[in-house]
Amino acid sequence: MTVADWDLATPAALIDAVALKRNIARMQERMIALGVRLRPHVKTPKCIEVARLQLAAGARGVTASTLKEAEQFFDAGVADILYAVCIPPSKLDRVLALRRRGCALTILVDSVAAAQAVADKGRADNHAFDVMIEIDTDGHRSGVKPDDPLLIDVGTLLHRGGAMLKGVMTHAGSSYDFDTPEALQHVAEQERAGCVRAAERLRAAGLPCPEVSVGSTPTALSATSLAGVTEVRAGVYVFFDLVMVNIGVCAAQDVALSVLTTVIGHQPDKGWAIVDAGWMAMSRDRGTQRQKTDYGYGAVCDAQGRLLDDLIMTGANQEHGIVSRRDDAPDPHIAERFPVGTRLRILPNHACATGAQFSEYRVVTTDGDPPIWRRFNGW
Amino acid sequence: MTVADWDLATPAALIDAVALKRNIARMQERMIALGVRLRPHVKTPKCIEVARLQLAAGARGVTASTLKEAEQFFDAGVADILYAVCIPPSKLDRVLALRRRGCALTILVDSVAAAQAVADKGRADNHAFDVMIEIDTDGHRSGVKPDDPLLIDVGTLLHRGGAMLKGVMTHAGSSYDFDTPEALQHVAEQERAGCVRAAERLRAAGLPCPEVSVGSTPTALSATSLAGVTEVRAGVYVFFDLVMVNIGVCAAQDVALSVLTTVIGHQPDKGWAIVDAGWMAMSRDRGTQRQKTDYGYGAVCDAQGRLLDDLIMTGANQEHGIVSRRDDAPDPHIAERFPVGTRLRILPNHACATGAQFSEYRVVTTDGDPPIWRRFNGW
Repeated sequence: MTVADWDLATPAALIDAVALKRNIARMQERMIALGVRLRPHVKTPKCIEVARLQLAAGARGVTASTLKEAEQFFDAGVADILYAVCIPPSKLDRVLALRRRGCALTILVDSVAAAQAVADKGRADNHAFDVMIEIDTDGHRSGVKPDDPLLIDVGTLLHRGGAMLKGVMTHAGSSYDFDTPEALQHVAEQERAGCVRAAERLRAAGLPCPEVSVGSTPTALSATSLAGVTEVRAGVYVFFDLVMVNIGVCAAQDVALSVLTTVIGHQPDKGWAIVDAGWMAMSRDRGTQRQKTDYGYGAVCDAQGRLLDDLIMTGANQEHGIVSRRDDAPDPHIAERFPVGTRLRILPNHACATGAQFSEYRVVTTDGDPPIWRRFNGW
Repeated sequence: MTVADWDLATPAALIDAVALKRNIARMQERMIALGVRLRPHVKTPKCIEVARLQLAAGARGVTASTLKEAEQFFDAGVADILYAVCIPPSKLDRVLALRRRGCALTILVDSVAAAQAVADKGRADNHAFDVMIEIDTDGHRSGVKPDDPLLIDVGTLLHRGGAMLKGVMTHAGSSYDFDTPEALQHVAEQERAGCVRAAERLRAAGLPCPEVSVGSTPTALSATSLAGVTEVRAGVYVFFDLVMVNIGVCAAQDVALSVLTTVIGHQPDKGWAIVDAGWMAMSRDRGTQRQKTDYGYGAVCDAQGRLLDDLIMTGANQEHGIVSRRDDAPDPHIAERFPVGTRLRILPNHACATGAQFSEYRVVTTDGDPPIWRRFNGW
């Protein structure tokens, strides 16, 4: 039985279970070789079954991007969770409720204001929150610079305020801007060194800092040494995507998430096949636009997942995708090649964004009807 | 009570009920003035309560972009539905099931292959489907050109095959590329004339063609005559968005959908406030990027919805948004102006895409806690 035979409503999100398990094993082996724990970021798949495979392979705890993820994963039996987005005061009640249910939920701050709110809330509710400080090692987003005096202020405020200062964490989001092993190794070392430097400064100030947490998929797969680091966080590696192909940390055949779609029409003069996966299915993410290969809204495979290298999804409306040649030379035989009803699979630019358009995954196994794995969205 | 006081988890999708009702009334009045029926496209809000307001104002039936929308709206009591995406054979069972439950569901084709499949299915199941033919009046996507001989072939095949040929429909998606009243009037007239021309050709060939359905929000609001047209479809007008502001068919204060967010940190040196609405909340849609005013990931308002004209969301990660000055001159007082915990509202580039990131809307009324309106997603 093949995907083409399945009586699946399209568009549908497919997980290639073989690629998924290979990706999980690869990252886990790399972390073992580097001597660090892996705390996978569940924000990409938001799926209990995927996390269970990661934990079974050796991961320790998970990283969440929303409190809803934390709640869902705790309900599914995962108690060790880092909520890796700085916490505003209005979310502390929900954090406290989860911790009082037994969840070892760690929260994040990068400012005196947030640290003060955490300390105040802990005092008011007689509770010691587990807290990490976000470090900015590449200037791309949030965090305290490793050498900023603010780091010690925030750490001191938390520690004296009764919180458990668990350590420091950073995310080298700028790693997405590079595509050579040398540049990625450089970003990985910058991420490691900056975070370790912050930990050393906290310790030198007499503050506890047991954990040093770094990560992004490109840096995790490029780092040659993680001296001083205790854990790595990475998310998208579990599915990979075309952005990661362009960065150079995987091949197209490693991409475990695809969107199954059906041809619904053609514009033969233009060499277009119109499919029923538009941006609502693929997401509006055009992450490969600024990279060395622009895949439009996705790379095109046949229903069995074999890459059709001459085609990409060149355009997308809400429920329409346009599949045509990437070299802009119209294929005059597009309608004969892919008649109405033909099924295709589209590999996504960005698995986190494409996954988010679906409430469930269909899992492609070697035979039989695919199981359904639920995905959750929202906050 | 103001939005700032609500104990809402952020990010949250807010509907400004005053703007919503004003937008609904404006479009309905325009359609009455032009002497056509309005069949609103529910793909933007995907919300029963919004559709009920549109129907109460005078709309007749709805337009759907997925079969799930058709099923959900039929279950909610709306029986007259046009599924405005060309139908592949694999979806006909689901269409038939819905029609046999009493839903007056009209489907769409633009090819001999699809028309043949509809005729075959009707014959096999002894059922006469209601079918429209999609017309391509601007070359932007699907449809048969008004003067293409294929039009008569498709119409004949449907009619002789036992289907009810309800008429022709077109969508001038290219209207989104213009931003002057003159250009929009021109596209509206091209849309009208092309669709009417197709209807006349079908009728001249002895085929039935009672309905002539056109529409997009920009053309619906720009058309000066709709002679020969029986109904107009439009969707995004109900919320409007920044793309529509740039096109010139509404003002920022007409945008009825916004994302409520909380400030979670700052990078004072860069003039950044970091908020908890990233692209997961706003969507990856950057529809204003190629327009006259680029709003980044959205325009920024205070919690009451008053536009803060100097700011936009300049960047977005999955759960982080960067709010900063649109003129790139860092505001050195950003942290004092918007302390951690401050609530802001972000107007979206594209309401269809931003709405799709949420499973419910919070409705901003003049007082009291806001009601929740459910939204559905998926297929």
